[in-house]
Amino acid sequence: MGSSICLGYLGPKGTFSEIAAHKYSQGKGWQLVECSSLEDIVNGVVSGMLDKGIVPVENSTEGSVGIVYDLLAGSCDLAIEGEIIVPVVHSLLARSKISTKRIEKVFSHPQALAQCRNFLRKNLPHVCWQECTSTAAAAVLVAESEQPWAALAPASAAAVYGLEVLIPQANDYPNNMTRFFAIGREQLSLTSTHCKTSLLFGVCDRPGALYLVLREFALRGINLTRIESRPAKNKLGEYIFFLDFLGSTADPAVQDLVRNLSKITTYLKLLGSYPAAE
Amino acid sequence: MGSSICLGYLGPKGTFSEIAAHKYSQGKGWQLVECSSLEDIVNGVVSGMLDKGIVPVENSTEGSVGIVYDLLAGSCDLAIEGEIIVPVVHSLLARSKISTKRIEKVFSHPQALAQCRNFLRKNLPHVCWQECTSTAAAAVLVAESEQPWAALAPASAAAVYGLEVLIPQANDYPNNMTRFFAIGREQLSLTSTHCKTSLLFGVCDRPGALYLVLREFALRGINLTRIESRPAKNKLGEYIFFLDFLGSTADPAVQDLVRNLSKITTYLKLLGSYPAAE
Repeated sequence: MGSSICLGYLGPKGTFSEIAAHKYSQGKGWQLVECSSLEDIVNGVVSGMLDKGIVPVENSTEGSVGIVYDLLAGSCDLAIEGEIIVPVVHSLLARSKISTKRIEKVFSHPQALAQCRNFLRKNLPHVCWQECTSTAAAAVLVAESEQPWAALAPASAAAVYGLEVLIPQANDYPNNMTRFFAIGREQLSLTSTHCKTSLLFGVCDRPGALYLVLREFALRGINLTRIESRPAKNKLGEYIFFLDFLGSTADPAVQDLVRNLSKITTYLKLLGSYPAAE
Repeated sequence: MGSSICLGYLGPKGTFSEIAAHKYSQGKGWQLVECSSLEDIVNGVVSGMLDKGIVPVENSTEGSVGIVYDLLAGSCDLAIEGEIIVPVVHSLLARSKISTKRIEKVFSHPQALAQCRNFLRKNLPHVCWQECTSTAAAAVLVAESEQPWAALAPASAAAVYGLEVLIPQANDYPNNMTRFFAIGREQLSLTSTHCKTSLLFGVCDRPGALYLVLREFALRGINLTRIESRPAKNKLGEYIFFLDFLGSTADPAVQDLVRNLSKITTYLKLLGSYPAAE
């Protein structure tokens, strides 16, 4: 055990992060380490307490997990080494098979509440919503109380905490998916054909500055799969841009791209190349 | 009173949204209407229950307010008619001038807690954080309890709810600002020189698709001030893009731009032109 790879994920047991961690480490004999915050995972990898970590980056309904982008921008010596996509089905869980009409409060992570917003408005218009630090923490709260409460959490959390599944699928969009990054300390050099690369950069506030960056991709026929802006934090209206694109830093075209980007950006940081998830 | 303009804002009294609403309606004799959610404001304007509304769109530390972009994308007949920028200073408020060491719990809106994250970690490492629906709701909770609790809220909320200011400025970044949109039902035609216009669009998943859109702006020397992507919700990896740029739909160059954009996007929606905030 002592020498196995330690992989951090956002606990407690039963979160979608744990599902992503299992998916990423399948058959590898790694040790999964429950962490209590996303900062703890990132700082754990940077300091060497963890070898790798799993962090959520975007959900198909609710969008980016801003803090993860901020942590990636603010940490040195971190590399993205994988992506994992997990279908996210939120179930309504309670201590016993009570009618949903009797439920007085629904607990979950703010992202899960947002992903089930229309369902709750329509089917449980009378309940209060209460935000928790994770879907599993919501399941724990409901399991430990004798109140007529329910949690929105993965169905698998029902078995872990002894709860009943009242509604198997409560999310508003059936194709609800969350994308996770696997992070480590070393950038991979991948020659596989189906890779993605992530980077971040800043540009001057001048007409066409972002256009000139995207032009470098278009000239090389490199497909962007995502662009995300985050505030630079020092001033409203200044941003850091995050790009994901198809290709690897082992490709000569990508190396040429990066050389050119470094000339037209105010700063540029490669976050790593990784095999694209199916 | 009956015939005056009704302007909705996110209550309760004492929120930064109320400060933005006062700033926007100054000297106009409009009636301010406290709303309990951002959906209520947007739906109120669409249905005609409200004439106008104030909604937060981005903060210089925490980034976009995703739900507002989703509401703008999903609502017909809405127009952005103004922007308001409010300096956001979070104060630590309590019922009496107690030592911060005695505080056991801090309440606030998740955005405010995030904007004061480093302050809390450093100065109140022992406290639990609890999320509330608004900064003012946090102030109410603290005012009504006899527990050693504190709220992160505007200093002005202290007077409203009879609280003491323990720490005047608790946010991690001193230039913390929030940008609000004023929304109404009619698009303005503005000929002033310092305008912004907002629009949203979708593109095909093909190399260079976003580049071709930005190219139309660069060709005309039109400066983008913001680009934001939101999930299209039906599938992971599909996005709606929101752009803000300098110029008005009354400018011939912008009209020409919009005609060209409508040919190279899968859909395009103008959200309105408005005077740029200082």
